[in-house]
Amino acid sequence: MSLITARLYEAIAKKGFVCVGLDSHLDYIPDYIKQKYSGVEEQLLAYNLAIIEATQDIAAIYKLQIAYYEANGLAGLRAYIRTLQYLKEHKLLSIGDIKRGDIAATAKEYAKAHFTGEFAADFVTLSPYMGLDSVTPYLDYLKRGDKGAFVLLRTSNPGASDIECLDYHGEPLYYKVGDDLLRLTEELDNEPYSPLGLVVGATHAEEAASIRKRYPKQFFLLPGYGAQGAKAENIRTYLQDFNGGVVNSSRGIIKYYQKFPDGGESEAKFSNYTREAVVKMREDIYGA
Amino acid sequence: MSLITARLYEAIAKKGFVCVGLDSHLDYIPDYIKQKYSGVEEQLLAYNLAIIEATQDIAAIYKLQIAYYEANGLAGLRAYIRTLQYLKEHKLLSIGDIKRGDIAATAKEYAKAHFTGEFAADFVTLSPYMGLDSVTPYLDYLKRGDKGAFVLLRTSNPGASDIECLDYHGEPLYYKVGDDLLRLTEELDNEPYSPLGLVVGATHAEEAASIRKRYPKQFFLLPGYGAQGAKAENIRTYLQDFNGGVVNSSRGIIKYYQKFPDGGESEAKFSNYTREAVVKMREDIYGA
Repeated sequence: MSLITARLYEAIAKKGFVCVGLDSHLDYIPDYIKQKYSGVEEQLLAYNLAIIEATQDIAAIYKLQIAYYEANGLAGLRAYIRTLQYLKEHKLLSIGDIKRGDIAATAKEYAKAHFTGEFAADFVTLSPYMGLDSVTPYLDYLKRGDKGAFVLLRTSNPGASDIECLDYHGEPLYYKVGDDLLRLTEELDNEPYSPLGLVVGATHAEEAASIRKRYPKQFFLLPGYGAQGAKAENIRTYLQDFNGGVVNSSRGIIKYYQKFPDGGESEAKFSNYTREAVVKMREDIYGA
Repeated sequence: MSLITARLYEAIAKKGFVCVGLDSHLDYIPDYIKQKYSGVEEQLLAYNLAIIEATQDIAAIYKLQIAYYEANGLAGLRAYIRTLQYLKEHKLLSIGDIKRGDIAATAKEYAKAHFTGEFAADFVTLSPYMGLDSVTPYLDYLKRGDKGAFVLLRTSNPGASDIECLDYHGEPLYYKVGDDLLRLTEELDNEPYSPLGLVVGATHAEEAASIRKRYPKQFFLLPGYGAQGAKAENIRTYLQDFNGGVVNSSRGIIKYYQKFPDGGESEAKFSNYTREAVVKMREDIYGA
């Protein structure tokens, strides 16, 4: 078992399968933080840290969607960096949701950027459109054991039908992508799970069963719970014994407090509501 | 004609079709800059500005591959920002080579990040793997007229065979992607060229002719001249009358000075060699 696989496996066993998506938009920041902190960097950071502190014993991992930070320029990226640092200092796991995909020479630079230095996360997400050579440069880091990746396979947005789900030799194209990735990662330590996982969206029950059967050694990163409408039942199929992946919810957790008139009044209230969102999500999926 | 289309069309007519790729790696920086400037940000910026100053009357546009800047953390991204600012101040065109591709809500944030604010470029590159809804959020900016995009279609890296070139209903899959994009952009001002262009790699002659015939209204961003081995003859086919796109060369231009023992000794020598690389590239392609 690679070090990163062991860490994620253990985190899921201990804390459950929830991945908290820090898609941290300025519009989401609660009033008490706006009153206490000024400036984009400090507000985003305070928001993220409040979410993390409220959920760290019941969330396996935190996913930072870098687009929300890039949209705020350097100040946003400083908040991204400081959030990753906080997670690292507290021995919590992180996914840099970057979905990069480029030719090998460029992918090498992205791998350096997001596995080492200021932007370093434990896992990154990758896009395979340009082919396997856009993934290869990350494998050097995966072989060393302390880094992992989730490659886009079959997502749950409407556009998934445009390329990912096209018919290819009688099967959806994403199986071709997944099979290619399996071959590419044969030399990694893939027991019980590989450091190269897959991003798999919410789908219907048969598809969930079929995808899980085909890729039993892959951790799945399952986005779309809540806002994108993934069903608890299908999620359970993907998770196999609740140890085969993590279920991401972003807005469903980090904006949950907005459902309550007093949600943003104080850190105590914000924390309680945010934690409640994670607890309810776990109950919903466990109970499916 | 949209404003951005007019600007690129005019730049190509006046200065030729060369796109200078600022894939600016620290290893490439000439000695005279290393002696004069200290720190990643200042060295990368001085390098980029020396390249731009030496070539601005013979290059249509500058492409910044953001991976090379991300690899140097915030200091690298500050150099990215300041290079874009310099280009804007000097009324020179820029491509942010970001190849982002994500669900619509996230794409909206990337569009904000790279069309407005600190990271704003005139054009961006996009990846279509997750489908058309990953491209849609950028169209609002294209409709306004002053921004453009190049979407990955058929690239020239070995991995292009893994997805892009798969057989789909008797044709390569990239035609399906291109046709989808045409439908998506029907409402844009596409005369004589659309603000939504395509990234098309170096291929064999028949493929070049066929792709160009199918997408006559698209500017092509042609990477791969030099280091990736695009042939001048096929490039000419893609360019149709030398106004239908730009040909990118990165290392072939920005590292050209390293072929000469005195290349990095002074700004004058570095500029002369760098300019020579662009001149030779233009001659090679015009003369094909």
